[in-house]
Amino acid sequence: MFPLKPKPIGLPPGALIHTGRQKSSEITLNLIDYDADHHLSREQVSLEECLPLKETASVSWINLSGLHDIDLLQQLGDAFSIHSLALEDVLNTGHLPKCEEFDGYLLLIFKLLHINEQSGALEQEQISMLVGPNWLLTFQEKPEDIFDRLRERINRANGRIRQRGTDYLAYAILDSVVDSYFHVLAHLGERLESMENKLLLDPDSQSLQDIHKLRQELALMRRSVWPLQIAITEFQHIESSLLSEETAPFLRDLLDHISHAVESVEMMRDGSSNLLDLYLSLASQKMNETMKVLTIMASIFIPLTFIAGIYGMNFENMPELKLAWGYPTVWLVMIGCALGMVWYFRRKKWF
Amino acid sequence: MFPLKPKPIGLPPGALIHTGRQKSSEITLNLIDYDADHHLSREQVSLEECLPLKETASVSWINLSGLHDIDLLQQLGDAFSIHSLALEDVLNTGHLPKCEEFDGYLLLIFKLLHINEQSGALEQEQISMLVGPNWLLTFQEKPEDIFDRLRERINRANGRIRQRGTDYLAYAILDSVVDSYFHVLAHLGERLESMENKLLLDPDSQSLQDIHKLRQELALMRRSVWPLQIAITEFQHIESSLLSEETAPFLRDLLDHISHAVESVEMMRDGSSNLLDLYLSLASQKMNETMKVLTIMASIFIPLTFIAGIYGMNFENMPELKLAWGYPTVWLVMIGCALGMVWYFRRKKWF
Amino acid sequence: MFPLKPKPIGLPPGALIHTGRQKSSEITLNLIDYDADHHLSREQVSLEECLPLKETASVSWINLSGLHDIDLLQQLGDAFSIHSLALEDVLNTGHLPKCEEFDGYLLLIFKLLHINEQSGALEQEQISMLVGPNWLLTFQEKPEDIFDRLRERINRANGRIRQRGTDYLAYAILDSVVDSYFHVLAHLGERLESMENKLLLDPDSQSLQDIHKLRQELALMRRSVWPLQIAITEFQHIESSLLSEETAPFLRDLLDHISHAVESVEMMRDGSSNLLDLYLSLASQKMNETMKVLTIMASIFIPLTFIAGIYGMNFENMPELKLAWGYPTVWLVMIGCALGMVWYFRRKKWF
Amino acid sequence: MFPLKPKPIGLPPGALIHTGRQKSSEITLNLIDYDADHHLSREQVSLEECLPLKETASVSWINLSGLHDIDLLQQLGDAFSIHSLALEDVLNTGHLPKCEEFDGYLLLIFKLLHINEQSGALEQEQISMLVGPNWLLTFQEKPEDIFDRLRERINRANGRIRQRGTDYLAYAILDSVVDSYFHVLAHLGERLESMENKLLLDPDSQSLQDIHKLRQELALMRRSVWPLQIAITEFQHIESSLLSEETAPFLRDLLDHISHAVESVEMMRDGSSNLLDLYLSLASQKMNETMKVLTIMASIFIPLTFIAGIYGMNFENMPELKLAWGYPTVWLVMIGCALGMVWYFRRKKWF
Amino acid sequence: MFPLKPKPIGLPPGALIHTGRQKSSEITLNLIDYDADHHLSREQVSLEECLPLKETASVSWINLSGLHDIDLLQQLGDAFSIHSLALEDVLNTGHLPKCEEFDGYLLLIFKLLHINEQSGALEQEQISMLVGPNWLLTFQEKPEDIFDRLRERINRANGRIRQRGTDYLAYAILDSVVDSYFHVLAHLGERLESMENKLLLDPDSQSLQDIHKLRQELALMRRSVWPLQIAITEFQHIESSLLSEETAPFLRDLLDHISHAVESVEMMRDGSSNLLDLYLSLASQKMNETMKVLTIMASIFIPLTFIAGIYGMNFENMPELKLAWGYPTVWLVMIGCALGMVWYFRRKKWF
Repeated sequence: MFPLKPKPIGLPPGALIHTGRQKSSEITLNLIDYDADHHLSREQVSLEECLPLKETASVSWINLSGLHDIDLLQQLGDAFSIHSLALEDVLNTGHLPKCEEFDGYLLLIFKLLHINEQSGALEQEQISMLVGPNWLLTFQEKPEDIFDRLRERINRANGRIRQRGTDYLAYAILDSVVDSYFHVLAHLGERLESMENKLLLDPDSQSLQDIHKLRQELALMRRSVWPLQIAITEFQHIESSLLSEETAPFLRDLLDHISHAVESVEMMRDGSSNLLDLYLSLASQKMNETMKVLTIMASIFIPLTFIAGIYGMNFENMPELKLAWGYPTVWLVMIGCALGMVWYFRRKKWF
Repeated sequence: MFPLKPKPIGLPPGALIHTGRQKSSEITLNLIDYDADHHLSREQVSLEECLPLKETASVSWINLSGLHDIDLLQQLGDAFSIHSLALEDVLNTGHLPKCEEFDGYLLLIFKLLHINEQSGALEQEQISMLVGPNWLLTFQEKPEDIFDRLRERINRANGRIRQRGTDYLAYAILDSVVDSYFHVLAHLGERLESMENKLLLDPDSQSLQDIHKLRQELALMRRSVWPLQIAITEFQHIESSLLSEETAPFLRDLLDHISHAVESVEMMRDGSSNLLDLYLSLASQKMNETMKVLTIMASIFIPLTFIAGIYGMNFENMPELKLAWGYPTVWLVMIGCALGMVWYFRRKKWF
Repeated sequence: MFPLKPKPIGLPPGALIHTGRQKSSEITLNLIDYDADHHLSREQVSLEECLPLKETASVSWINLSGLHDIDLLQQLGDAFSIHSLALEDVLNTGHLPKCEEFDGYLLLIFKLLHINEQSGALEQEQISMLVGPNWLLTFQEKPEDIFDRLRERINRANGRIRQRGTDYLAYAILDSVVDSYFHVLAHLGERLESMENKLLLDPDSQSLQDIHKLRQELALMRRSVWPLQIAITEFQHIESSLLSEETAPFLRDLLDHISHAVESVEMMRDGSSNLLDLYLSLASQKMNETMKVLTIMASIFIPLTFIAGIYGMNFENMPELKLAWGYPTVWLVMIGCALGMVWYFRRKKWF
Repeated sequence: MFPLKPKPIGLPPGALIHTGRQKSSEITLNLIDYDADHHLSREQVSLEECLPLKETASVSWINLSGLHDIDLLQQLGDAFSIHSLALEDVLNTGHLPKCEEFDGYLLLIFKLLHINEQSGALEQEQISMLVGPNWLLTFQEKPEDIFDRLRERINRANGRIRQRGTDYLAYAILDSVVDSYFHVLAHLGERLESMENKLLLDPDSQSLQDIHKLRQELALMRRSVWPLQIAITEFQHIESSLLSEETAPFLRDLLDHISHAVESVEMMRDGSSNLLDLYLSLASQKMNETMKVLTIMASIFIPLTFIAGIYGMNFENMPELKLAWGYPTVWLVMIGCALGMVWYFRRKKWF
Repeated sequence: MFPLKPKPIGLPPGALIHTGRQKSSEITLNLIDYDADHHLSREQVSLEECLPLKETASVSWINLSGLHDIDLLQQLGDAFSIHSLALEDVLNTGHLPKCEEFDGYLLLIFKLLHINEQSGALEQEQISMLVGPNWLLTFQEKPEDIFDRLRERINRANGRIRQRGTDYLAYAILDSVVDSYFHVLAHLGERLESMENKLLLDPDSQSLQDIHKLRQELALMRRSVWPLQIAITEFQHIESSLLSEETAPFLRDLLDHISHAVESVEMMRDGSSNLLDLYLSLASQKMNETMKVLTIMASIFIPLTFIAGIYGMNFENMPELKLAWGYPTVWLVMIGCALGMVWYFRRKKWF
C-alpha cells in the first residue's frame, strides 16, 4: 500500500514538508542540454549552473535525486516559477500518478517499479516531472539507472530525440518507465505460473503466504498503472502549445502500452484469485482424504476391538470361552466384519 | 453505520427537530471577523453581537457548537434568511455529505472523523457549513479543536487567507477536514498492517473480531468520503459569484486529496477482504493440521489396540498364548504395523 | 419477492383484471377538497358526489381503498379520462415503482412498507397516484393510517399545503411515504445490530435463519426504494404545467431523502453480507475448537489405552507381568506419554 | 446455454444453412390477412397463395413453422426481397434476441420460453419476425399455440388490432411472448420458494442439484430477456415510417413489462445465490453438529475405557485389585470423569 | 495468459525486435492478386515479385508466415511506407487485439484460436493485417490453413468477393477468424457440459484441475474476443475512403457475431464458476457423509467397548462376574445401548 503520510492538521496549503522516508543521503543535480546540433551533459552541478540554460532555446533536462533539501527545491521552484501546490505534490512521495496542467508547464507524477533482487519484493519510487516549453525537470527519491540508456540515446547525434522538443523527451521518459513495468509484469507472471505448478504438484502451507504476497504486489502494481493510464490520457488531450503534432502518434502508442499493462495486471489479479480458489479447493480435497483415512481405519477396527473386548470379559459363565472352536469362530467373524466394511467403502468409491 | 433518525410521519417538511443524540450540554457561539487589514476574534458571543457583522464587507465566520437549542437556530436562520429545508438538514445529524446551492448561499454538509483515544473506535461528527457572500456559518455537534490551527492562521496578518473571501475560508475548512482523514487512514492502515503480521505469525480467535471491526469502520469511512468527493466536485462546478477564480486551483488540489482518500479507503477495503480470505484459509489449513494429527494417532494405535485386545480374550483354546515366542512375536507384528502406517503417512507427505 | 402475477396469455393490453390478493373486503372512497380559503373532508362518499368537484379550481383529493371492484374503477377512469393502460397498472399490485406521463396527468406507483407488529415481518402495499391539474387520485389496497396526519395538516387553515396545488400535495404524500421508510430502516438497522451482538456473544443455529430473513427483507426493501428513486427523478424532470416552480426545492429535498434511504439499504445489505461472512467464520472457528478437543482427548488416551491393552494380554510368557515394579513402571510410562502429548499440544498453542 | 452452432469455416456470409436441431418434421405455412373491414385466415397454404397479398394494403401475416426447408425459405426471401444476412439469422436458431433495421423492413429475433410439463425443464424456441409496411413474416421452429388467442382477437371484428397496422401486430406478438415470460417466472418463483422452505425444514443432498438446475435455468432466462429489453428499446426508437405514433404508448408499456421481467430474473438470481449460501451455511452447521456428537462421545468414553484398561492388566503386583472397595472406587472415579466432561461441554454450550 | 515480452529498457520506440517465440523455421510469402476479371495466385514468392502489384488497381493480398526475418519485414515496411510503430506492433506477438488508423492504411491485430488436437489445449496465434487502398498485408506466426477456403472463394470467378475491394477482403478474413471462434466455443461448451455431468455422477479429484484448466482457457478466450469486439467497432466507425458503403451491413453482421461470441464466453465463465461452486458444495456434502459414518460407528461402538472393558477388569471383588445371568445381561445392555444410538441417529435423519 502506498504510505499515507498525513501532515499536521491546519497547515496552509502549499507548505513544503518532505513527508517521505529519506531514501538517499546524497542530493545530486544532473543536467543535460541538447538540440539537433549540440549536446551538453554534466553531473553533480550546482543550481547556479543550471539556471542560465532555462532561457536558451535548446532542451534543458535537469534531474534532481533526493528530495530532503527543501531549500534547494524552493530555489529551483522559484527560478522556474513553479506553483507551491506543484512543489508540495513533488515532495509528497505517497502521491497517486496524475497529470495536471499549470500555467505554462505540466506536472506529471508517476511510479517507478522494480523487483528488489535480494528480497524479491516489489519496490516503488515516485518520479515527478515538470514539462516546460524548453526545460524539463525530473525529481527522484534516489538515483536510478533507468535513465542511463535514455541519456545514451541523447548522446548519439543521429537519434530522433535530438530533433524534438521537451514533449518528446517527456514521452521518452514515460516510455522507459512503462517499458520497465513489463519487466516487473514478466517477473510476477513467472511467479504466478510457478506457484500454480507447485500448487498442482505439491501444495504446502507456504503456498498460501506466497499467494497472499503476490496479491498484495498486484494491488500495489494496479495502483501504479491505473491512474497512470488516466494521467497519460489527460496528457494526450491537453490542448497546449507544449505538445507538438509530431508527438501525437507516439503518445497513442504509449497509451496502448499502458493499457496493455493495465489489462495484464487485471488478468493476473484474476489469475491470483483463481489460484486462491484452487488452493482452498485443494485444501478441502485433502481434508476429505484425511477424513476418509480416519473413517476407514476407525470403522474397520473399532467394531473388531469391541468384539475382542467382549471375550476379554471375566464373567464366570461365558459358555463360548470353553468351546474348542470359539476362538477360530471369533476370528472368522472379525474377518467377516472387516471385509464387510471394506466392501462398503469400496462401493462408496472411497478407495 | 450512520444512525437513521426517522422523524414522526406526516410532519411538514422543514419542521425543525433535533434528531441527533445531544453530544454536548453547552451551546457556544464563536465569531471571527477579518479582512486583509483588521481581525476580530471573540468566543461565547450572543447572537445579537453577530448580526451587525453580516452587513460589513469583511469576512464573518460564526461557529455554533451544540445543536439542541432550536430557537437559537431558528433566529440565526431568520437573520441570515436561511431556507427552512437547509436548517432541517443542519439539524439532522445523520445526513450524508452533500453540497446544495440555495438562493444566495451554499450548504455543505460533511463529517469530521477521529479515532477515540480511549476506545480506539472511529467516531464521527457532522459539520454543516453555510457559505454566503461575506459570511460563513458552521454548525458542530460539540466543540472540536480541529479549527484551532485555522484560527491561528487567520490571526497571523501575513497569511494568504486574510487576502481572500469566504470561498477560500470554506476551502480552508474543508482542507483541514480532509487532512484529518489522512490521520484516520494512517491509523487504520497501521492497524491493518499489524493485524496482517499477527495473522501470519499467530492467528487467534480475536483476529476475526478485529477484522470485522476494521471492516465496519472502513464502511463508515467510505460513507463519509465517497459522498464528500461528489459534494466537492459539485462545489467546484457551481457557477456562482460566491466562487472566485483564484480559489479554483486550491479546490482542484482539494479534490485531488479527497480522491486520494477515497482511493485509499477502497484499497484498504480490498486489503481487509484479503485479510478475511487469509484468515479463513489459515483456519482451514489449521483444521487440516488438526485432522492429520488425529488421523495419524488413531490410525497407528487403533489397530495395535485391536491386536492387544485379541490376546486379551479369555478363550480356553488359544494356542498362541502358550507359545514361548508368542509375546515377542506380537510385539514385532505391532511394531511392523506401526512402521507401516508411518511409512504410508510419510509417503503421503503428512509429516 | 414481489408476487409475479401473470395474466392469461393473449389478453388485449389494457384489459382490467385485478391480479392482486384481495386485502380488504371493504371498498371506501374518501374525498378532500380544499384551497387557501375553504376545506371539505368527507369519508365513504359515492362516486357521484366526487365527480362535480373535478371541474372546480380547488384541489380535489379522492382516495380509493380496495381494488377489487373493477366496475367502480372503470367508472372513475372514464370520468377522469384515464388511459386503460394506466388503469391496468393501478390494478396490477405487483408493479415496480415508476413514474409515467400521460396526456394531461401523471401516474406514480410506489410501495408503502411497514413492519407487521405481530409477526415482525416486513409487509408492503402498493399505492398508485394519478396527478391531474386540480385533482389527485390515490389507490390503496387497504385503508392505511399513514395519510391521517397529512389530512390533519390540510385541516389546519394556516399550513403551507393549503396555499399550493396538486403537485405539492403529491409531494407531501410521497414525503410521508419516504419518511415511513426511515422507520422501517431504523427497525431493520436495530435488528442488524442486535444480531451482530448476539453473533459475537453466542451464535446459535437460529442466527443463520435470522440473517437469511433479514437479507430477504432488505432485498424487498431495495426493490421498493431503487425504482422509486428513479421515478422521483423522472417526476422532478417532467416538463409539465402540472409542476410549479415553487415545488422544485421540495422535490430536490425529497430526492435527497430517498437517496439517503437507498444508500442506507445498500449499507445494510453490505452489513448483512458481512454478518453472514462473520457467521461462517465463527462456525469454522468453532469447528476448529471442536476438532482440537477431540484430537487432544484421542491423542492422549488412545496410546495409553494401547499400553494398557498390551499388559491385558494373556500370554503365558510375559516376563514384565511378574516383575514387582512392572505395574508402577507402566504407570510412569503412561504419565510420561500423556505429558509428552500435552507438551506437544501446548507448543502448538492448541490450549 | 444457447447451443453454439459453428458453421464450416470460410463459407461466404449469407450462406443459408439450417444449423438448429430439427424440432418438427412438418413445415406449415399459415396466412392471416385483415384490415378494419375484412378478415381472411387460412392454414397450410402454399407459398404461391401468399405472394399476391403482399401487394394489397391490408395487413398480411404469414407464419412459417419448421425451418429445415431451405428452398422454401429462399423463395420466401426472394419474394419479399429479404437480405441474405437476415435470412441467415432466421436460420441460425442459436441467435441472441436482437432488433435490426434493414432497407424497408425490420428484423426482430426473440425467444419463446415455456416449462415442459413432463420434465419440468425450461425449454426455449427461437421466433424471428420480419416487419414490412403491410406484411409481417414470423418464423418458428415448431408450431406453438401461443399465437392462438391472438388469432382469435384478430377474428373479432371490434378489436383494436383490426384498426391498426403491422407495427401494432408486431407489438401484440411481442406482448404475448413477454406475457408468457411471466408464467415461466411465476413457475420458477414458486420452485425457488418451495426449495427455500424445504431447505430450512429438511435439507438433503438433492437440494444442491435442484439449486444448480434452477440457477442454470435462470441464466438461460436471463440470456433471453436481457437482450430482448435492448432490442425492444431499439425497436421503440427506430425512426421509420413503419412505426405509427399511436403504437408508441403500447411499446412503452411493453418495455415496462420486459423491464419488470428483467428485474424479476435478477431478483431471482440473487435469491438463488442466497439459497446456495444458505445451503452451504446449513451444511457447515450440520457438520458442526456431527463433529460435536463425535467429540462428546469420544471425549467421555475414551478416558473411561482407558481406566477400565488399566485394571484389565495382568500384573501380578497390582495392589488395588485386591482391595475390597477397589471396584466401587473405580466406578466412582469413572462417573466423576464422565460428569466432569459433561459439565465441561455444557459450559461450552455444546448441548 | 498472453506472454508478456518486455524489450530492453530505453530502446527507442519503433525499434524492430522479434519478441515472440519462433513458431516456424520457414518464412513464406504468398501472393494473391485479383479483380472481377482476372485472378493470380502464387505461393513462395520473393519480395521483388510482390512490389510491382502494389501500384496496380487490382486487390493484392500478400501473406507473410514467420516473423523472425527482421530484414524482410523492414523491406516490406519500406516498400509499403509502413510506420515503424506499426511494424513494431506486428512483431510483438503478445499484443492485444486492436484497430489503429495510420496515414493511408489501417492496422488490425487479432488472435487465431484453435484447439490442439493432440493435447486438447487451447492455442493462440497472432495475426496482423494492414489494409491499404488496393493492397492488404497479413502477417502470421506460422502457416495456417484457415485461409484456404477463403482462397478457394477468391478462385471462383462468380463470388461476391471478386467484385469488392480490400475492405471486403479484410471483412472476409475477420469473418473466417470469428467463425473459427465458434468452433472453439463449441468445443469448450461440450467440455463444460461433460464436466458437469461427470461432477453430478462421480466427482473425483481430477475434476478440480479440469475446471481450473477450463477457467484459464476461458480467460484466454475472453482476452481475445473482448478487445476484438472493440477493435471491430472502431473499424466500423473509421471514416476513411478505405471503407465503402456496401461493406457496412457485413461489418454490422460481423459485429453481431463477435458480440455473440463475447456473450457466450461470459456465459461459459459464469457456468464454470457455478461448476466450481458445485464442486465445492459436493465436496462439502461428501465430507459431511464421511463424518457421519465415522460418528455413527464411533458413537455406537466406543460405549460398548467401554462396557466390555469394565468387565475385563481383574478386581477380585466384582460380584457381577459371578452371577449366572451376568453375561447375558451385559449383552442386553449393550444391545440396548446400540439400539438407542441407532434410534437417536435415525431421529436426526442421519441415515
